[in-house]
Amino acid sequence: MVTKRILGIDPGLAILGFGVIEYDPAERCANSPHIQTIDYGVVQTPARTDTGQRLCTIYDDLHSVIDQYKPDLVSIEKLFFYRMGNTILVAQARGVVMLVLAQHNLPFVEFTPAQIKQSITGHGNADKVEVQDAITRELKLESIPKPDDAADGLAVALTAWFRME
Amino acid sequence: MVTKRILGIDPGLAILGFGVIEYDPAERCANSPHIQTIDYGVVQTPARTDTGQRLCTIYDDLHSVIDQYKPDLVSIEKLFFYRMGNTILVAQARGVVMLVLAQHNLPFVEFTPAQIKQSITGHGNADKVEVQDAITRELKLESIPKPDDAADGLAVALTAWFRME
Repeated sequence: MVTKRILGIDPGLAILGFGVIEYDPAERCANSPHIQTIDYGVVQTPARTDTGQRLCTIYDDLHSVIDQYKPDLVSIEKLFFYRMGNTILVAQARGVVMLVLAQHNLPFVEFTPAQIKQSITGHGNADKVEVQDAITRELKLESIPKPDDAADGLAVALTAWFRME
Repeated sequence: MVTKRILGIDPGLAILGFGVIEYDPAERCANSPHIQTIDYGVVQTPARTDTGQRLCTIYDDLHSVIDQYKPDLVSIEKLFFYRMGNTILVAQARGVVMLVLAQHNLPFVEFTPAQIKQSITGHGNADKVEVQDAITRELKLESIPKPDDAADGLAVALTAWFRME
């Protein structure tokens, strides 16, 4: 059995959520394919440190996550515009994420928040709790993954699995 | 004589301009301190390659520029909002620039385009030609530095020198 791993990333400067799932490509068309949750967590950078140092932490920690879990594919939540100042900070962090993926020669797919909600719950305007309940059920977890950003990382990983050709 | 070097950077994804100037801190208050132009140039990334690869090129080439010129201070042009899509791309490239500076423990200062024009020409709404003429005169160059992005790199380096306490 050759399994494949998907690393889901919800990028951010203060907190970057990630989730790693594993599946067996041979089971793709089975009635209830098993998807295993390998791990989930967050990379956090303290607000009091300067942006460059925070980007260094994201760079180093994301390299470690990839070295540890060796994903075959990465799934990223697309940048969503809400407040301009914050968007720039998130875009800078996202630039570092894309750099690290390219340094590992890792292919990636991107999904908007609405695409993620649609894939996970069946409707694009689901709220956070509905998404978290759905991934908990789908991944047969004992409880809702915490913190929220780690759950978002699992949700975007699962979206890539659902949308796979 | 202990000289100091300033690396000026005009960040961008397609083309990142840089300029390196050197000065003698002991001459700071002299009537006509000598500022030497060490080098200027650009880091270019082809539009047809994907963003991750382009960010890798910026990462590698900027490390090389810093290793080669060993600046004491970096001066960066502040991100200017014009078109949203483009701003996100520039912000991602800027995230990689800030990462590299932090990895080298390099201090940096930032200036808006208006601050740069004001420092170089004496008025904040100077056009590109006025800025280029002023840096050519100030740095005693034989001709206007080309391409424009390299001239912008020298302009932001020179701004840091002018505005130094």
